Amino acid sequence: MADVNGKVDLRSKFLDVYNVLKSDLLRDPAFEFSDDSRQWVERMLDYNVPGGKLNRGLSVIDSYRYLKEGKELTEEEIFLASALGWCIEWLQAYFLVLDDIMDNSHTRRGQPCWFRVPKVGMIAVNDGVLLRNHIPRILKNHFRSKPYYVDLVDLFNEVEFQTASGQMIDLITTIVGEKDLSKYSLSLHRRIVQYKTAYYSFYLPVACALLIAGENLENHVDVKNILIDMGIYFQVQDDYLDCFGEPEKIGKIGTDIEDFKCSWLVVKALELCSEDQKKILVEHYGKDNPEDVSKVKALYHELDLQSVFTEYENKSYEKLISEINSHPSKAVQDVLMSFLGKIYKRQK
Amino acid sequence: MADVNGKVDLRSKFLDVYNVLKSDLLRDPAFEFSDDSRQWVERMLDYNVPGGKLNRGLSVIDSYRYLKEGKELTEEEIFLASALGWCIEWLQAYFLVLDDIMDNSHTRRGQPCWFRVPKVGMIAVNDGVLLRNHIPRILKNHFRSKPYYVDLVDLFNEVEFQTASGQMIDLITTIVGEKDLSKYSLSLHRRIVQYKTAYYSFYLPVACALLIAGENLENHVDVKNILIDMGIYFQVQDDYLDCFGEPEKIGKIGTDIEDFKCSWLVVKALELCSEDQKKILVEHYGKDNPEDVSKVKALYHELDLQSVFTEYENKSYEKLISEINSHPSKAVQDVLMSFLGKIYKRQK
Ligand SMILES: [Mg+2]
Ligand SMILES: [Mg+2]
Ligand SMILES: [Mg+2]
Ligand SMILES: [Mg+2]
Ligand SMILES: [Mg+2]
Ligand SMILES: [Mg+2]
Repeated sequence: MADVNGKVDLRSKFLDVYNVLKSDLLRDPAFEFSDDSRQWVERMLDYNVPGGKLNRGLSVIDSYRYLKEGKELTEEEIFLASALGWCIEWLQAYFLVLDDIMDNSHTRRGQPCWFRVPKVGMIAVNDGVLLRNHIPRILKNHFRSKPYYVDLVDLFNEVEFQTASGQMIDLITTIVGEKDLSKYSLSLHRRIVQYKTAYYSFYLPVACALLIAGENLENHVDVKNILIDMGIYFQVQDDYLDCFGEPEKIGKIGTDIEDFKCSWLVVKALELCSEDQKKILVEHYGKDNPEDVSKVKALYHELDLQSVFTEYENKSYEKLISEINSHPSKAVQDVLMSFLGKIYKRQK
Repeated sequence: MADVNGKVDLRSKFLDVYNVLKSDLLRDPAFEFSDDSRQWVERMLDYNVPGGKLNRGLSVIDSYRYLKEGKELTEEEIFLASALGWCIEWLQAYFLVLDDIMDNSHTRRGQPCWFRVPKVGMIAVNDGVLLRNHIPRILKNHFRSKPYYVDLVDLFNEVEFQTASGQMIDLITTIVGEKDLSKYSLSLHRRIVQYKTAYYSFYLPVACALLIAGENLENHVDVKNILIDMGIYFQVQDDYLDCFGEPEKIGKIGTDIEDFKCSWLVVKALELCSEDQKKILVEHYGKDNPEDVSKVKALYHELDLQSVFTEYENKSYEKLISEINSHPSKAVQDVLMSFLGKIYKRQK
């Protein structure tokens, strides 16, 4: 296969590891599979695990490479970093399968949500649970004898707990029939995105790479804090693009306004608006009607949220750069810069 | 409080530990609670965790006591055994919250299923996930420094995986709109109940007690096998009582026939029936109509499944007794006999 810049090769190698992990899981001695149940699990995995952008998973390998400071990785090292990358993709698949049920969504990654597939329905709840259970199986199969095994298991457990807790505040602040904008604030927004997204999307891949590199995570609280800040910045971008991005680039038509989401935009609007403008938000935010949505968007333009965002973006970038530059390790700086480079001024 | 035989005291001491664990969870430093989210979690825990019979949880303490051969337990030992007992109750709560969603059930333990409580709805999916996530938090808070910590975490992970896998075969064999009795067999029934029920209800409490007693679980595969057999026997009783038990005693009106369950009774009926009798099952099994149900029950009587069950019960009992007696350790024998004593010839 053509390998222009190594990316094709990296991705296809990463996908090879998926197939190894999957076939291990399909003959796990802790369960007696029948043909029916083995087929069910295989189809469920292929449908839900490998179809995303794989950014989180691939970034474990990238990060580990930086931490090894350019030393060529052995086949075993690549396999282990890839296996942890896949654990993150499995974790993400688990969250997404259940999130789509809770949000009553229709499509995901360009296909129907798993629970909408014929004959799946609410079995998808248990499939989500199975996805989650595969992570400790993978860890046990490949890391049980490593000195950092217990830290790895603790790490995945803690990050899952944080993500589920973030999901909880997201869910209870948007309880159907209780549309109350007075609860929305920058601090609530920060808390939701920090817990729901930042830990598993930004901190977890780097923490995995640090563990296989033999590092003690307790010595890297500063790295965690920078990555959490980056994750928050990433989610603010996500909120911004939901309204102001080009649908062709972001691959979907945003519905945060219709969905009464605690988006960074509505929080900023609430912060900046007059009493009269606030009435517009209260009246039109969270309604499915295109005319309501237009009213909200017009207000966002009136408040010049695009400039407010650009200023936020620039300030965040500067702050992150200075935090990264003050880190004592060049290798860690490289890891963090590569994350930041991937997201700064992104349009999709 | 009156303490006739120590039971009241045991149970209320056990409930005290619930309150300790709950208050730890409600101020977990890994998450920033707001008042709203703390209240949500507390209400969710109180609704779903402590309301059952607590048999599984209490049996960790019982088992540990036997393993210590009558030596008085210290306060710390009682606390640790209780904490593990509660982890099993948390695990059970997690399974039940999600199972009720998947089965579209109405009541549980005499109250509406959690997802049917106003304003909960599909948030219950994430609440199930939170319940599950509390287990590693409890383990980390109280067992992180124990030599058996990693085995404990592995144990809970493996048993959860087995339970979810058993749930999967239960779900995919009863897919709505695919009523196919030809798949039902004793071996499928055994597989469902072994994985869905026996590991977490019978093996897990004893395995927890063995770990805190300093035992290596790899040396107790025979204990596991006996407990799994006991769990299967327990579920056959459950299936039997669903049809032949007294509703006043079992606390509910069984609906396995209506629900097209892969019950031990229908499996036995399929094994023993003539071609003509089989037609009755195919026509009437799995229908909500009382007349259909009566036809199935009449066939069960015709096939004398009550006697078939009594014979099964006697044989299982004898086999279990002989397995228990051949175990080299008197303490382990006591543990196993206490489990068997609680379920043999039970009517509820
Ligand atoms: Mg969603
Ligand atoms: Mg959601
Ligand atoms: Mg978004
Ligand atoms: Mg059920
Ligand atoms: Mg069920
Ligand atoms: Mg039953």
